[in-house]
Amino acid sequence: MRQIPLVTLTTDFGTADGYVGTMKGVILSIAPDAQLVDISHEIAPQNVRQAAYVLYTAYPFFPPHTVHLVVVDPGVGSARRPIALRTPAGYFVGPDNGVFSYVMAREPVEALVELRDPRYRLPQVSHTFHGRDVFAPAAAHLAAGVPITALGPPVLDPVTFPPPCLEITPEGITGEVLHADRFGNVITSIGRLVWSEDELSFEPAFRKAGGGGWARFKAGEATIVVAGREIAGVHHTYAEVAPGDVLALVGSEGHLEIAVREGSAARRLGLRSGDRVVLRLR
Amino acid sequence: MRQIPLVTLTTDFGTADGYVGTMKGVILSIAPDAQLVDISHEIAPQNVRQAAYVLYTAYPFFPPHTVHLVVVDPGVGSARRPIALRTPAGYFVGPDNGVFSYVMAREPVEALVELRDPRYRLPQVSHTFHGRDVFAPAAAHLAAGVPITALGPPVLDPVTFPPPCLEITPEGITGEVLHADRFGNVITSIGRLVWSEDELSFEPAFRKAGGGGWARFKAGEATIVVAGREIAGVHHTYAEVAPGDVLALVGSEGHLEIAVREGSAARRLGLRSGDRVVLRLR
Amino acid sequence: MRQIPLVTLTTDFGTADGYVGTMKGVILSIAPDAQLVDISHEIAPQNVRQAAYVLYTAYPFFPPHTVHLVVVDPGVGSARRPIALRTPAGYFVGPDNGVFSYVMAREPVEALVELRDPRYRLPQVSHTFHGRDVFAPAAAHLAAGVPITALGPPVLDPVTFPPPCLEITPEGITGEVLHADRFGNVITSIGRLVWSEDELSFEPAFRKAGGGGWARFKAGEATIVVAGREIAGVHHTYAEVAPGDVLALVGSEGHLEIAVREGSAARRLGLRSGDRVVLRLR
Repeated sequence: MRQIPLVTLTTDFGTADGYVGTMKGVILSIAPDAQLVDISHEIAPQNVRQAAYVLYTAYPFFPPHTVHLVVVDPGVGSARRPIALRTPAGYFVGPDNGVFSYVMAREPVEALVELRDPRYRLPQVSHTFHGRDVFAPAAAHLAAGVPITALGPPVLDPVTFPPPCLEITPEGITGEVLHADRFGNVITSIGRLVWSEDELSFEPAFRKAGGGGWARFKAGEATIVVAGREIAGVHHTYAEVAPGDVLALVGSEGHLEIAVREGSAARRLGLRSGDRVVLRLR
Repeated sequence: MRQIPLVTLTTDFGTADGYVGTMKGVILSIAPDAQLVDISHEIAPQNVRQAAYVLYTAYPFFPPHTVHLVVVDPGVGSARRPIALRTPAGYFVGPDNGVFSYVMAREPVEALVELRDPRYRLPQVSHTFHGRDVFAPAAAHLAAGVPITALGPPVLDPVTFPPPCLEITPEGITGEVLHADRFGNVITSIGRLVWSEDELSFEPAFRKAGGGGWARFKAGEATIVVAGREIAGVHHTYAEVAPGDVLALVGSEGHLEIAVREGSAARRLGLRSGDRVVLRLR
Repeated sequence: MRQIPLVTLTTDFGTADGYVGTMKGVILSIAPDAQLVDISHEIAPQNVRQAAYVLYTAYPFFPPHTVHLVVVDPGVGSARRPIALRTPAGYFVGPDNGVFSYVMAREPVEALVELRDPRYRLPQVSHTFHGRDVFAPAAAHLAAGVPITALGPPVLDPVTFPPPCLEITPEGITGEVLHADRFGNVITSIGRLVWSEDELSFEPAFRKAGGGGWARFKAGEATIVVAGREIAGVHHTYAEVAPGDVLALVGSEGHLEIAVREGSAARRLGLRSGDRVVLRLR
């Protein structure tokens, strides 16, 4: 049976202006039976790293025929290339500005092309809205079954940004704050962490090969140092501390997370993306 | 003809983080042709009563095969049970924390189970994101046709919170503020009110049986007492008063509503959930 | 092959309250296989002109069988008529308050009716939520194939508001600010502008017939006067100026736009809808 085309959308367009709806009109004009799923349209304007992180948390839960369309594009109208890539975990379409860095660090790239063939763009391409004129048509055609290699020539040197800070020493792991979510939970680059009873094993995320199970340690004996403060132990869940207390736990992506039960750790500790976090083992 | 699976989503996740998109990926991996409808993702964080109210206004307008997925879950990771229920008006999936209280007060519950069968969860269940790992898969399997009794053992003692204040005396009806909407319209627990010409008949909402048509009164002769203020009469519509005026009317759910024409009653009168409202008849 | 029914939604309901979800439940109860696309639910409360503008940017990118449902309805419950119209570019359903002015200024109206037939409303019509009780059912029935003339009698005198300011003299073009988007880009009524190398040709938007190619001028020699400030030249894209610089460019709808690269022109220049903008040619 033919698969239902499935396209996700991640942008910094917000939802007030009709830009996202316009892109969906373009997609449905090309792939009329496509299912459309919003990942987020509230990426901070032009924050490519935030988009990369949000995409990283969501794409693994979609079927592998899904096309993930990402338009966070500070360079629209400049020479930055529009690209599409195919991996075993899905297709990705967007600007060549590093937004797929975390995907490429986790998935083998089977094909990577520049979106150059005019048959897969709108007839008129504006200078300021490639989401509508270039990316949405490409995503729709991919979802409808056009082979990725038809879209344009191969790209051999995609832009990627360096993976987030993650230094590992026998004394502990140093990482950085990646993201603060709506609840004020602060997600760090220290992952992936996997529970086994009261022990945690650590396997670096954002690495292509090898690595695997670098450390295994007692969760209760670790100390987390962040914002000049020491937090004792890694917990399983918010409910293990009193309301209002700060705690460290393993978040739903397997990354170390700083939280306040029924409160906001981002606000309480004044944490921002890039702030340093140390997991001290001893 | 086979019905198209239909799943609605109500959460306090917001739409910035990708959590909702992730749940949709899980649902579409299990039920690829499901239609997904967002009810709200802007429930105030962990506000179970608000979620219960918003769900109460929306579910009656969906077909009875719909699965309503609700994830407002302050107790995630604790012992609170994940549940699913079947009523003649639809299926409901979420935490056992009272969020289905208003549904259960209006609809007969035909089946109520705990989501315990691991076949209907993701293979790995995190401690902090049961929306993705437990609730979304259960909703998808229900929507795809799995019988509710397959999901787990019956629950006989679901958590429900007491219905909102609604005291009825021959002098009038005392209720409370349930909700203020985006426009600042303040919805109270005094309902359902049904117009018949210039008279209103009152039948208590949130009651399972009996009751029915307790009072019938002239709408123009009622006085509403709220926030130390008296409002004369119950109106049909905003346009019956001048812009900026405070009025009482029967809202679209049949509940008594306090509004300001082209303004915000919530802000003008400083009203909040739980504030007392009296409808005085005389 | 039968087309999949497609309905877009544009409202000022916000997404916190469940009103939009409720309308979608009504639509899917009538047209179970309909695709639903949100254009915007963040129109400023009761801002009919903003809704008209957002709709104007989006509808041309949808297939012509699409039904565009718009509910920005300050007059709900008053005598204002509920209407539907058919054009070669799509169907439109909403209140008769001018919200379709820009559509009617661009598309020939093939049919225009009042939504009066009770078979195409919900059985009970509230005084305050015609989006649910009148407009959503009409949109769903249209999408499902009911002919527009079945919905009610013809309307010969629809409400339209005057098109935005656009005065043309040999010295230049005077327009007004139409909209500021999420990025702070300020869109003006001066359009449509079409590039041809370094020249721009101007053809008035919002005009039914004729007009066509009124002016052709060197983009680099124009001066834009706005907020007591002069901006030199019209650019192709943001990247042509330094970060933080103010520029004028042709936006994705072909309208003159004032922007700040990686910043907000609306905030920097204090611009609001209706503010005067002059494009001086010389």
